Amino acid sequence: MKCRTCRGPAIIDLKAHNANFCAEHFLAFCREQVARAIKKHRMLAPDERVLVAVSGGKDSLAVWDLLLELGYQADGFVIGLGIGDYSETSTQYARDFAAVRGLTLHETSLRDDHGFDVPTAAAVTRRVPCSACGLSKRHLFDRAALEGGYDAVATGHNLDDEAAVLFGNALRWNTEYLARQRPVLPARDGFPRKIKPLIRLGEREMAAYCVIRGIDYIVEECPMAAGNKHLRYKEALNAIEAESPGSKHAFYHEFLARAADLFTADVDGTDAGSGALGACQRCGSPSSNEVCAFCLLVERTAGAVPVTLRERAGADR
Amino acid sequence: MKCRTCRGPAIIDLKAHNANFCAEHFLAFCREQVARAIKKHRMLAPDERVLVAVSGGKDSLAVWDLLLELGYQADGFVIGLGIGDYSETSTQYARDFAAVRGLTLHETSLRDDHGFDVPTAAAVTRRVPCSACGLSKRHLFDRAALEGGYDAVATGHNLDDEAAVLFGNALRWNTEYLARQRPVLPARDGFPRKIKPLIRLGEREMAAYCVIRGIDYIVEECPMAAGNKHLRYKEALNAIEAESPGSKHAFYHEFLARAADLFTADVDGTDAGSGALGACQRCGSPSSNEVCAFCLLVERTAGAVPVTLRERAGADR
Repeated sequence: MKCRTCRGPAIIDLKAHNANFCAEHFLAFCREQVARAIKKHRMLAPDERVLVAVSGGKDSLAVWDLLLELGYQADGFVIGLGIGDYSETSTQYARDFAAVRGLTLHETSLRDDHGFDVPTAAAVTRRVPCSACGLSKRHLFDRAALEGGYDAVATGHNLDDEAAVLFGNALRWNTEYLARQRPVLPARDGFPRKIKPLIRLGEREMAAYCVIRGIDYIVEECPMAAGNKHLRYKEALNAIEAESPGSKHAFYHEFLARAADLFTADVDGTDAGSGALGACQRCGSPSSNEVCAFCLLVERTAGAVPVTLRERAGADR
Repeated sequence: MKCRTCRGPAIIDLKAHNANFCAEHFLAFCREQVARAIKKHRMLAPDERVLVAVSGGKDSLAVWDLLLELGYQADGFVIGLGIGDYSETSTQYARDFAAVRGLTLHETSLRDDHGFDVPTAAAVTRRVPCSACGLSKRHLFDRAALEGGYDAVATGHNLDDEAAVLFGNALRWNTEYLARQRPVLPARDGFPRKIKPLIRLGEREMAAYCVIRGIDYIVEECPMAAGNKHLRYKEALNAIEAESPGSKHAFYHEFLARAADLFTADVDGTDAGSGALGACQRCGSPSSNEVCAFCLLVERTAGAVPVTLRERAGADR
């Protein structure tokens, strides 16, 4: 097995790309894929400042590292979600990554700064934990980017993530979600631009990237996400990919090339767009209601007895 | 477990419909689903004559039976594909079904009437056998329907089949195929109308229908189709369905309701439609070329040494 670039011994085979690489040229391949995604989808201009949404997992640390390698001004932002040891450990990985490299990492804690945590929010709202978690992350990343004057928020969504979300949306032909599933969401209505620079790289590549670059990250999946639909969609696509390498790439990127505009045109045709939003009376964030969904969550969870993961696991039995 | 209709003991549970049925009301349920599909998609008028494409498998015999039960004038047509014992056995099931019920079954044999068989065509064309098989079936069913003055050709494609084809088309975002994937293809350019009355019933329901109705059918899958992509797509969707009953129904029927027209409009917009076709110089069938694809296949395979399945299996080793 020889490196496609230098013909030296390869350490990784990428079936979807029909290529093998040595460590050095695999890293170059990853940088090139990110640079291509950024250029093709006009994610960032060279002088723009970007805030990376960091979890402490392989994808968010890799995208931060890759953006820096490509010369962008990238700071990090990590949220303490209060999911027991999982959150503490993953936040520590983010801190260590930043400290060793002398990077700026902003931090907030749901419990300390906003009075709740994800397990408690899930119990109070009686919804899946991913719901309150996603809402909180979107809100806090957006606000941090605007307050810090960043041009964009970068997330570590990789090809496997995006293909799984696309599969879920296509399974229900949720045309509104299909219309919005893009690698770049332009700044709009007071929200910052959102970009996904890893859409040309999969989970396996990101894990290999971190190992080769010596980036320590939390390997465990979030304990509250176990068994969710997103993971099932990934498994289904992995089975297809194993038999037909490149299927995931084609599924997501052909969607962008051939189908996404059809859904966008349809949604734009039936809905005149959201127009300018008002501001949340409490936090000032853009919102179509008087109080934004995050501030409502803060209100609903205020005073609730904190649910630790241990108690929650017991209650489920 | 009680029958939803009569509250007597149920013999089958349909998780996707959140219902259980006794034998009698399960049959009524199947008839109702087929009647709904026919009505909603305007497949057939009450007095129209329909030719059923029969293979000897559960789906084609069930759709024939169901169309008769619903009062339609339905004859059958079976093609000897020359796939060794599989074809002989499956054709015999079709003959037995027709004979016991005093039905009209038209027959043709690829080898006897057209000088080739599917394994030989696959070897000569060096393509997957399903390619020559599908081409031959479409051509011969169409021609038989037109020559016999039938208003439509009915096929036994069930919900599992259609969902798997849809999945394959969506995986590549093949917008032309997505535009054409409908439960009814209207008569056009000299081709007869094609209808798929089983789109609201899955494989498990069709097997149960045949067992309850005492319809004997060939249980084996075609030996030449083993391991093809279509079966992999079915497996992937089955895994999703097991966790979320009703997923397949939503995937296919929401596609028809919400997305199919977007693809059709796109294709119609970029391609002015095929317009009137000419006639094949050899067989007279509608064709965009001087000689149709089926007659070309007959020409290419003429004189080729027949490939038996046994020889083919040996050659693959």
